[in-house]
Amino acid sequence: MRLILSSNIGFCYGVKRAVGIVDELSSEYKVKTFGPLIHNPQMIERLRAKGVQTIDSLNDKTNKECKIVIRSHGVGPDTYNLLNKMGIDYIDATCPFVKNAQDFVKRKNREKITVLIFGDKQHPEVKAVMSYAKDIVVAESIEEVKALPNFKKIAVVSQTTQSKQLFREVVMVLLDKAVEVDIYNSICGATESRQTEAEKLSCMVDIMLIVGGKNSANTRRLYTVCQNHCEVCYHIETVRDIGFDLFPKNSTIGLITGASTPDFIVDEIIDAMEREFGADLSVETLN
Amino acid sequence: MRLILSSNIGFCYGVKRAVGIVDELSSEYKVKTFGPLIHNPQMIERLRAKGVQTIDSLNDKTNKECKIVIRSHGVGPDTYNLLNKMGIDYIDATCPFVKNAQDFVKRKNREKITVLIFGDKQHPEVKAVMSYAKDIVVAESIEEVKALPNFKKIAVVSQTTQSKQLFREVVMVLLDKAVEVDIYNSICGATESRQTEAEKLSCMVDIMLIVGGKNSANTRRLYTVCQNHCEVCYHIETVRDIGFDLFPKNSTIGLITGASTPDFIVDEIIDAMEREFGADLSVETLN
Repeated sequence: MRLILSSNIGFCYGVKRAVGIVDELSSEYKVKTFGPLIHNPQMIERLRAKGVQTIDSLNDKTNKECKIVIRSHGVGPDTYNLLNKMGIDYIDATCPFVKNAQDFVKRKNREKITVLIFGDKQHPEVKAVMSYAKDIVVAESIEEVKALPNFKKIAVVSQTTQSKQLFREVVMVLLDKAVEVDIYNSICGATESRQTEAEKLSCMVDIMLIVGGKNSANTRRLYTVCQNHCEVCYHIETVRDIGFDLFPKNSTIGLITGASTPDFIVDEIIDAMEREFGADLSVETLN
Repeated sequence: MRLILSSNIGFCYGVKRAVGIVDELSSEYKVKTFGPLIHNPQMIERLRAKGVQTIDSLNDKTNKECKIVIRSHGVGPDTYNLLNKMGIDYIDATCPFVKNAQDFVKRKNREKITVLIFGDKQHPEVKAVMSYAKDIVVAESIEEVKALPNFKKIAVVSQTTQSKQLFREVVMVLLDKAVEVDIYNSICGATESRQTEAEKLSCMVDIMLIVGGKNSANTRRLYTVCQNHCEVCYHIETVRDIGFDLFPKNSTIGLITGASTPDFIVDEIIDAMEREFGADLSVETLN
């Protein structure tokens, strides 16, 4: 048995930063986050055990007695305004890539240009980015972009975890719809390189393990990428979601994680495979 | 023999406007244009016969006694400044599509964004557009765009007569080079539809006649498009450049013109073909 790990594994920069902030604060203060800090239930459970709570609104009397953390997906201007108005001390753990997308949308709003966000309407990142402009459209697919009317000018930004290829197709469609197209490629570098690695790795193996929250957009995207190249793909959250005893002998197995998958989950998987296959298992990292 | 004429034939809007202005003025005034008014030697000759002169600079004592016309390719801000400073009354026949490209470049210069012009460095239109920004790069090919360094932001504009397909390729390359790409698609509508017609018509015929000035960028582009689909293509300026007696019997011939080709040249060609083939010739227009 051969296990090949992708070289980009575990938390991306934005998630590492957000988890680090909360980890450090929680040893001294009571910490509350807007919505789950990241899209990984196991990590959220660990944080909960350390007293980190999730809130949905600021109508809470205890807010002044704790540290409020804005999660990596970011929030809209209304929330910042409310925090300031209520005099609440908060720590902003918005992912820098998301922040850049918000700043672009804010700028285009000032320039009075319609903004298209290419992403999932229900995703908290997209919901927050949307709230920075008045004249905004969200499209979830190329078909939705094609169905848009013509514009004189349009600006376009992407959910940070989108597929690079799809975003390029969006730009091509917009070139037929508008004379002026202002593009901000907000797909984060880590997302891009994980997608490239997922493609490469899934072409080399018999079985692909894609590890990450079922509610993680970037993990689901990696799963879709892998399915194009490998017949047996499993999107798992933890080692308990899969039985290694059923894997055919001498298989080559690829492992990749989403950007919000903690290292401890990968370690558990490797430990379980070492127990299952013993000396038959070789573990290596993708070059 | 079958002659199929493209439906977009003769002058485009910008050229028609420029020639109209000069024609009208020349019946009352002495008219001078900066450089040849349009890229068609035969039309320039006709205008010269009416007393229309071509000048290259404003160091001319007679400038105040005549009407100065800025030709369809446009001029840079220095020329406008000089005209105003010298108190010379001028008429601006810059093509509106070129004017839009100039305005975009001016705006991006104010925003301090590097501007890429995709076009021919030596073309008067490109030379004029270039002069509206300080931080400017010109690329003539995809290879030149690929060789550019990375940018944080870049704006891109096209020579109005560029190939739509090439411009899309340029945008794709820039998406790998910059996070923010501001696109202004300045390829004029007439150029685009002539390119589409050239492709369609050249697939249907045995011989393609592409009629227009040898110095006309858009005519040369049409010739390149046609060569991809038809084995026998002729870029001619006038009826005198070709002998119809050598055309094989029962051929189907396509005819398309550049944007600065006057109708009288097309009429001369049709007349000559009617003389050559008599009742054997049918003339129709592409649907």
